[in-house]
Amino acid sequence: MSNSKPNHVRPDPDSVPPAVVNRLSLYLRELQHLVRDGEATTSSSQLGRRLGFTDAQVRKDLAHFGHFGHPGIGYRCEELVGAIRSILGTDREWSVALVGVGNLGRALLGYRGFAQQGFRLEAAFDADPTKIGSMLEGVEVHDIAQLAQVLADKRIELGLVAVPAAEAQAVADQLVSAGVGGIVNFAPVTLKVPEGVSKVGVDLARELEQVTFAVANREGSRVPRVHSPKSD
Amino acid sequence: MSNSKPNHVRPDPDSVPPAVVNRLSLYLRELQHLVRDGEATTSSSQLGRRLGFTDAQVRKDLAHFGHFGHPGIGYRCEELVGAIRSILGTDREWSVALVGVGNLGRALLGYRGFAQQGFRLEAAFDADPTKIGSMLEGVEVHDIAQLAQVLADKRIELGLVAVPAAEAQAVADQLVSAGVGGIVNFAPVTLKVPEGVSKVGVDLARELEQVTFAVANREGSRVPRVHSPKSD
Repeated sequence: MSNSKPNHVRPDPDSVPPAVVNRLSLYLRELQHLVRDGEATTSSSQLGRRLGFTDAQVRKDLAHFGHFGHPGIGYRCEELVGAIRSILGTDREWSVALVGVGNLGRALLGYRGFAQQGFRLEAAFDADPTKIGSMLEGVEVHDIAQLAQVLADKRIELGLVAVPAAEAQAVADQLVSAGVGGIVNFAPVTLKVPEGVSKVGVDLARELEQVTFAVANREGSRVPRVHSPKSD
Repeated sequence: MSNSKPNHVRPDPDSVPPAVVNRLSLYLRELQHLVRDGEATTSSSQLGRRLGFTDAQVRKDLAHFGHFGHPGIGYRCEELVGAIRSILGTDREWSVALVGVGNLGRALLGYRGFAQQGFRLEAAFDADPTKIGSMLEGVEVHDIAQLAQVLADKRIELGLVAVPAAEAQAVADQLVSAGVGGIVNFAPVTLKVPEGVSKVGVDLARELEQVTFAVANREGSRVPRVHSPKSD
């Protein structure tokens, strides 16, 4: 077994671009696949090639957090998995609550990728009396009115917001009052949270726009490119 | 009405960092809110403040695509909405197909944010005979075996993959063969697509990791920070 104690720098989280953190997650997934496939070591070029990045990008991203390569060896896969999990904070489990068990909420409860990365969905909440008290994917649906109490009892650390846009801010405020450290918001609205609480907004249309941007601007696409550049 | 003809540069899409494109979507949402609220103009500092970015970040992001500000006025909201939609390719509608109508697929079919941004979900596919032929959220569920035919008939341009990880690559291959220009993948696996086809992977655990990164590394968080920086 390789030495797996954390051996990396912890920069101020606000100084690291979110895109770098996002890529850390991608590197982690690939490294986990490599470990599963029995690979002991890898390189920035192999890792980059599997994900469509340059080796320079991989090295630059990791350099935010320390030096992980070994001369003549490259990266030790298990060691780098341990370091990235420690950087991301997923070297331990997190207890998570979900608010809103409509279709999206149910999808999130059934999403196996969470448990794989150490996220335990421990409670769900809804305001609909026909849902309260039921078990979905092994998780009990509580009355939203009980949110503060249940979150305290279960020591919930993170909240997922999957309610309609009009209700999302009120739900976020309740989660913050109940002491969660971070919120992932799936409602198509920008939430305000106090400093010291982290949030990420998941806007599914944004993912589609990433794709249309590439398709619409690509040479030879079905979409005519309208060139009207200003002099720069 | 302000002049709304496209008046921006179209850079090589591969030269624009994905994070910039992602922020364009955020700017677009805020500008759409401002227009709805009757605001005629805004500034990079107002736009940045609403989203938690610096004004310099906003200006730098937009500068990839041209000059949009007017001296003494700032940005005209409607004009900038038009420009960003043109840049993102969402100044027209896109026809979209969904493969996999489990919980996540149903959530995607019901997600109103897509239609708001001009994405028309026109067909769904599944292999489950009990689902084939049914209507979900006004969309017909077709037999996956009919994918190529239905995509051609409906001139589908983009595909959403919401099948289990083990089936995702095969589905992506079918979508590519059927001629879609872009794929948004919700399965927790990295897909391979040929050059010329765009893809974005949505890994919901990655969003959570963005949050745990900030929570775990924040001063005064519940999680002890382990400092073991190497000299650099």
